[in-house]
Amino acid sequence: MNIVCLWYSAGGKMDYFYGPGRNHLFVPGPVNIPEPVIRAMNRNNEDYRSPAVPAMTKTLLEDVKKIFKTTSGIPFLIPTTGTGAWESALTNTLSPGDRTVSFLIGQFSLLWIDQQQRLGFNVDVVESDWGQGANLDILASKLAEDTAHTIKAVCIVHNETATGVTNNLAKVRKILDDYSHPALFLVDGVSSICALDFRMDEWGVDVALTGSQKALSLPTGMGIVCASPKAIEASKTAKSVRVFFDWKDYLKFYNLGTFWPYTPSIQLLYGLRAALDLLFAEGLENVFERHARLGKATRLAVEAWGLKNCTQKEEWFSDTVTAVVVPPYIDSAEIVRRGWKRYNLSLGLGLNKVAGKVFRIGHLGNLNELQLLGCLAGVEMILKDVGYPVKLGSGVAAACAYLQNNTPLIASRV
Amino acid sequence: MNIVCLWYSAGGKMDYFYGPGRNHLFVPGPVNIPEPVIRAMNRNNEDYRSPAVPAMTKTLLEDVKKIFKTTSGIPFLIPTTGTGAWESALTNTLSPGDRTVSFLIGQFSLLWIDQQQRLGFNVDVVESDWGQGANLDILASKLAEDTAHTIKAVCIVHNETATGVTNNLAKVRKILDDYSHPALFLVDGVSSICALDFRMDEWGVDVALTGSQKALSLPTGMGIVCASPKAIEASKTAKSVRVFFDWKDYLKFYNLGTFWPYTPSIQLLYGLRAALDLLFAEGLENVFERHARLGKATRLAVEAWGLKNCTQKEEWFSDTVTAVVVPPYIDSAEIVRRGWKRYNLSLGLGLNKVAGKVFRIGHLGNLNELQLLGCLAGVEMILKDVGYPVKLGSGVAAACAYLQNNTPLIASRV
Amino acid sequence: MNIVCLWYSAGGKMDYFYGPGRNHLFVPGPVNIPEPVIRAMNRNNEDYRSPAVPAMTKTLLEDVKKIFKTTSGIPFLIPTTGTGAWESALTNTLSPGDRTVSFLIGQFSLLWIDQQQRLGFNVDVVESDWGQGANLDILASKLAEDTAHTIKAVCIVHNETATGVTNNLAKVRKILDDYSHPALFLVDGVSSICALDFRMDEWGVDVALTGSQKALSLPTGMGIVCASPKAIEASKTAKSVRVFFDWKDYLKFYNLGTFWPYTPSIQLLYGLRAALDLLFAEGLENVFERHARLGKATRLAVEAWGLKNCTQKEEWFSDTVTAVVVPPYIDSAEIVRRGWKRYNLSLGLGLNKVAGKVFRIGHLGNLNELQLLGCLAGVEMILKDVGYPVKLGSGVAAACAYLQNNTPLIASRV
Amino acid sequence: MNIVCLWYSAGGKMDYFYGPGRNHLFVPGPVNIPEPVIRAMNRNNEDYRSPAVPAMTKTLLEDVKKIFKTTSGIPFLIPTTGTGAWESALTNTLSPGDRTVSFLIGQFSLLWIDQQQRLGFNVDVVESDWGQGANLDILASKLAEDTAHTIKAVCIVHNETATGVTNNLAKVRKILDDYSHPALFLVDGVSSICALDFRMDEWGVDVALTGSQKALSLPTGMGIVCASPKAIEASKTAKSVRVFFDWKDYLKFYNLGTFWPYTPSIQLLYGLRAALDLLFAEGLENVFERHARLGKATRLAVEAWGLKNCTQKEEWFSDTVTAVVVPPYIDSAEIVRRGWKRYNLSLGLGLNKVAGKVFRIGHLGNLNELQLLGCLAGVEMILKDVGYPVKLGSGVAAACAYLQNNTPLIASRV
Repeated sequence: MNIVCLWYSAGGKMDYFYGPGRNHLFVPGPVNIPEPVIRAMNRNNEDYRSPAVPAMTKTLLEDVKKIFKTTSGIPFLIPTTGTGAWESALTNTLSPGDRTVSFLIGQFSLLWIDQQQRLGFNVDVVESDWGQGANLDILASKLAEDTAHTIKAVCIVHNETATGVTNNLAKVRKILDDYSHPALFLVDGVSSICALDFRMDEWGVDVALTGSQKALSLPTGMGIVCASPKAIEASKTAKSVRVFFDWKDYLKFYNLGTFWPYTPSIQLLYGLRAALDLLFAEGLENVFERHARLGKATRLAVEAWGLKNCTQKEEWFSDTVTAVVVPPYIDSAEIVRRGWKRYNLSLGLGLNKVAGKVFRIGHLGNLNELQLLGCLAGVEMILKDVGYPVKLGSGVAAACAYLQNNTPLIASRV
Repeated sequence: MNIVCLWYSAGGKMDYFYGPGRNHLFVPGPVNIPEPVIRAMNRNNEDYRSPAVPAMTKTLLEDVKKIFKTTSGIPFLIPTTGTGAWESALTNTLSPGDRTVSFLIGQFSLLWIDQQQRLGFNVDVVESDWGQGANLDILASKLAEDTAHTIKAVCIVHNETATGVTNNLAKVRKILDDYSHPALFLVDGVSSICALDFRMDEWGVDVALTGSQKALSLPTGMGIVCASPKAIEASKTAKSVRVFFDWKDYLKFYNLGTFWPYTPSIQLLYGLRAALDLLFAEGLENVFERHARLGKATRLAVEAWGLKNCTQKEEWFSDTVTAVVVPPYIDSAEIVRRGWKRYNLSLGLGLNKVAGKVFRIGHLGNLNELQLLGCLAGVEMILKDVGYPVKLGSGVAAACAYLQNNTPLIASRV
Repeated sequence: MNIVCLWYSAGGKMDYFYGPGRNHLFVPGPVNIPEPVIRAMNRNNEDYRSPAVPAMTKTLLEDVKKIFKTTSGIPFLIPTTGTGAWESALTNTLSPGDRTVSFLIGQFSLLWIDQQQRLGFNVDVVESDWGQGANLDILASKLAEDTAHTIKAVCIVHNETATGVTNNLAKVRKILDDYSHPALFLVDGVSSICALDFRMDEWGVDVALTGSQKALSLPTGMGIVCASPKAIEASKTAKSVRVFFDWKDYLKFYNLGTFWPYTPSIQLLYGLRAALDLLFAEGLENVFERHARLGKATRLAVEAWGLKNCTQKEEWFSDTVTAVVVPPYIDSAEIVRRGWKRYNLSLGLGLNKVAGKVFRIGHLGNLNELQLLGCLAGVEMILKDVGYPVKLGSGVAAACAYLQNNTPLIASRV
Repeated sequence: MNIVCLWYSAGGKMDYFYGPGRNHLFVPGPVNIPEPVIRAMNRNNEDYRSPAVPAMTKTLLEDVKKIFKTTSGIPFLIPTTGTGAWESALTNTLSPGDRTVSFLIGQFSLLWIDQQQRLGFNVDVVESDWGQGANLDILASKLAEDTAHTIKAVCIVHNETATGVTNNLAKVRKILDDYSHPALFLVDGVSSICALDFRMDEWGVDVALTGSQKALSLPTGMGIVCASPKAIEASKTAKSVRVFFDWKDYLKFYNLGTFWPYTPSIQLLYGLRAALDLLFAEGLENVFERHARLGKATRLAVEAWGLKNCTQKEEWFSDTVTAVVVPPYIDSAEIVRRGWKRYNLSLGLGLNKVAGKVFRIGHLGNLNELQLLGCLAGVEMILKDVGYPVKLGSGVAAACAYLQNNTPLIASRV
């Protein structure tokens, strides 16, 4: 018998799953919500046509630009998930039959490519081994050949959540510039924005997007899409069919000052307000450094365990998620199952091609050093549980050695 | 200075709007969330790939059918709003160019028709005066003529939220049956389902949909769509482009037992669980009776004030929203503004054609008699504020006379 | 079946009591908690010995003086109820056998007198009819006679919650001054402070106290006691046995800057911070006016119903609670029961001498006009339910007529 | 700048202390509140005189006996802290001048003895070195000598929170029995009950008490006192002055079936209901084993660090708190400060005699293995920070080795 079940099951079926103490949430999304954000969302509904909601929305639209590092972009806060945000990015800027270049490097880039194809675009899929970054040499050659500018968009995942690979967006921009290619530059920043440095204006990104449940550390339900002036311009002629995801409706209500073409989640608006306040209070650059620090500590632990990072080169190491390759005699799904069943630890499964071969440690969002170390200690015990001859304490020791030297005092407590 | 602002504004701009006491929320959505539901959603994120979320989802999908009164329908809980639910209903069942019959009787039917047109369907718009129900005679004649079955779907709003008009769905089904017409029967139940009796199976509805922030009394963010076997069958050949809203992806994950093609809102799932438990604890038929009681009381008050209901005939009276027509010398928007500014009361604006001419009292969702009476008393004072010669207390007296005779004891407290 | 029960009952006993919509809470305490305060308290525990809690406590102790209108008083935030706050006031300032003058005018003054006697003081009980204020003529004569200053304290309830009687504290002070009597002036402000104007310094009150669940609109659990310098001085020689309630321990920790001799409720501290912020945002004088407005409206309704106020003269009318006398053929307890069973309305019972004879409407704390009007409409229906020939709408009409003329715009929304 | 401050500071003073990620709360109280309990308390006030509150209270009084392992005891849920619970235990059973035997083994037993003395009892203080348990040999000799039965009560702290020492209560009972001594047996179970096995009936304890913010994992504010029939009998003649803490008032209202002599915290009642449900869902014996496991793991880590446990013998080891002795060249307060400033970790200070010499790790309440391991990793880094030559990872390794062998699967997830 357990209380979660009691709470919601009238029928009394005892299927669910209370365990003492905190759940240790280390999937690469949805991530831990900070207490102040949970508090901010703990509220009744409100009339979204009263003066209060537009007044708050105005601050949100202004402030959310900062997480994209854009001044000229126009953000849209869409009641959807990352998948919907992808669709919004594509359908507003492209027309059926348009040619795109897209990089297949893991499950999420695969899903985005699948979406592009189902939406009727003509996708040049540039595939790499899972664990490698986007092959930008091929991009260069494609752009070089494309003097007719048939390529309408380059679509790339900033951080592939399935493999823990971060692509170099500055380099993508450079290649586009090298060939003076006018293709739109569309970026999935779902597991990067607010965790990794993201420079929309500097990199000339045309559409960038993220989801609320990732580094913003909110519940799922808000797709945040930001469009450059060039993307907005493209949306005026893009012929992809769209209504719910159509920017035009938003822009119309932006002009009216009422902001919402349909009902937003009041709770997520207040939550976003709180989440942004927390990020700015910490300082975005400090947030990036914290993620770098936790990412590095995780990789040091993996190394100490004698295991391999799925990411094949240091240049692609991700500071938001680490995919750990297990020996062939171990099923990585069993590691995830054990974590949940024995230690109240939630790790990420290996997906698709790497199912059973990797497990993933998400280290993004509102997270600190000791949370991560608890997770790493848990992973060590699980590795031992499943028969891997790990030296208990080894990963934690390696991570601690790094963190003890590199963790700053908490700024507000100095 | 006010506290809402204090809460979230680092910059110290004092734009927002604390008022003492409860906000009296009488817009026809988003509606009041019951405290137990707010509590249920007051939680951290969870891994939606753990065994717990599918186990709960399974109960939700089973139980949500009950609010549609279907046993054969398949529900989809989509992270979107009502607008997205519309799009899901249409794009999964129809192909570009398909002919639909759709009834324009107010702002929300207008918006749905606009969506149908933008999605590329060929819409026969059947218009009525705002304040009247759908013209079903025209439907009959259209079906009679359509021996070639070029009409692929009849699209109708069960309850037009802008005018407080409820359409007779049983009659729509009868007409379809009279002509043995195979058109799909698509219903917007956004402001009806869980408040008005809705009988998907009995009425042969093919797609019905609602939004979480209406009579379910949840936050915005979940579009609930239910498809009949015939609709599911249609989805296999429907050529409308769709990805995010594609039922196929859901069905694939239903088969896998993991249920979610992309990340759901954990909070809304627990909230839905609680909302359904509350509805079932009260008893759906009792919920409908409560709405009927509150609707009737509201109409009696309007009559006592000497004002007209926007709804032109009793057969169309809505038990979820009442649109009240104001005399020509009064701007109904001023009534709404006053309510908010002086009495912390949120009423619905008149929209589009009836802007300035009606204001709306939403009486749907988790609401009881004394809440409504407080609202009615507030409306009386506002009417006086804006110069209408109302007899103070008159509407409340009329409503009380009815309610005092017709309100049952609270079942759990007898 | 009901959900509250589901929530917490493993055994499945279905004793509890879900009803749809809001509970209308009109007992004179505990009162409605504002949503921002509920949010502020929605949190985990914290180490109360970290720098954060003392830093916040310091602001609380400074700001809480404002609700007493004192600059020289020293406040204590004691984890207890009003009863404990009484005990703290008495035992810190008096010694066993000390003579006090205390006024018996209702159930709460009775309980305080009982406490004084059980704590070993020699109480001159000055009794009035229930419904009358304290007999200050007798106070005057007692002080006049007491040239030897055997009277050590005058103990008075500012607002008797059982009968809705407010005593005139300025007059008490004047009488003390007229006779230059050095007796301590101890005031129970449980149902007055933060709702009625209270002027500790101006009135020379030596100990004033309230409880968190009254006009501060918090949960129960914090007794707030404020001591004048004279009371602090008295505490140095007072011989009443005390430990938990001893101010000395608090003062010791105030000096240390750690503030707490034992563990406070973290949640109530944050709640108090929010409650004070809300009161100051509204403006204390506006808060008093709001209470005066709601009190007046309630009395007008009672008059319109043809019922009598338990309070016998206008000078004693209470703006925080109205005790309504029912005709002899009605049991007032039945009114309270009906309210809860049929309308989800919580009214106050008649207590002790007035049990069965009065019911009470609490109108204190975070409450606004429409909330009160909903309650008044409910009372009308209940009166009819129990056979009293009320004219439905009459009380609401009378209240509305007053409120419509006297309710200001919400300051932050002008 | 930080958000906690933003939340509540109108004046904009930025004194407070936001840090990213969870606070790691390892003081030995107040402890972590489980999310379901936070949810249960997230609510408005209620009328405590409605039928709902007594109905719930009845279940609480019945169920709370189980945490004391008593069937004949009578529990009191007093709105107070542990200090108040002490006072309730003493004043209800003893008269001024009564002789007690009390054991001074640390700060909390010291404070209780101080209270006993200030309340006017004649205390035989039996002192031990801090780090040792109660000297029961002296108890035996005192009882042996006391043939006249002048000793009215033996007062003992089950678990001394300042030093991490658990006393053997079964042995105390045995000694009392050996001498057939009728003294009352009064036990402070503040940091033991619900974490360590406690057997009120078996051990013949006459009054046992705890506080809500300890192993029950609630906010502070409820003192839970349980009295044996013998203690209840004693209360009828005990002459200590008391009102707020008087059991008689509770018993009167128990008989009336309304249960509360004064206003309880509605929120804490629902919280207690949830806390008990969680404890019973886990199983009390499993809760004790979990504490034993975490206590053992902590001690193994301390040993691996080369540090000494303040507790001098294994028989006294506490499974709820470990006081760690630091080398003379280190100030233990600096360790606590560092934890908070750098790692968002809250550890317990050394108190009084052991101030600067020990720091404390609280491992009681709703806590699991990975939470503890995160804390232990943090302590290692802090030890290094302050110049102690710890081998990073050593303590975690030792704890993991034990936990990996001894942690059961989570029962509900098997």
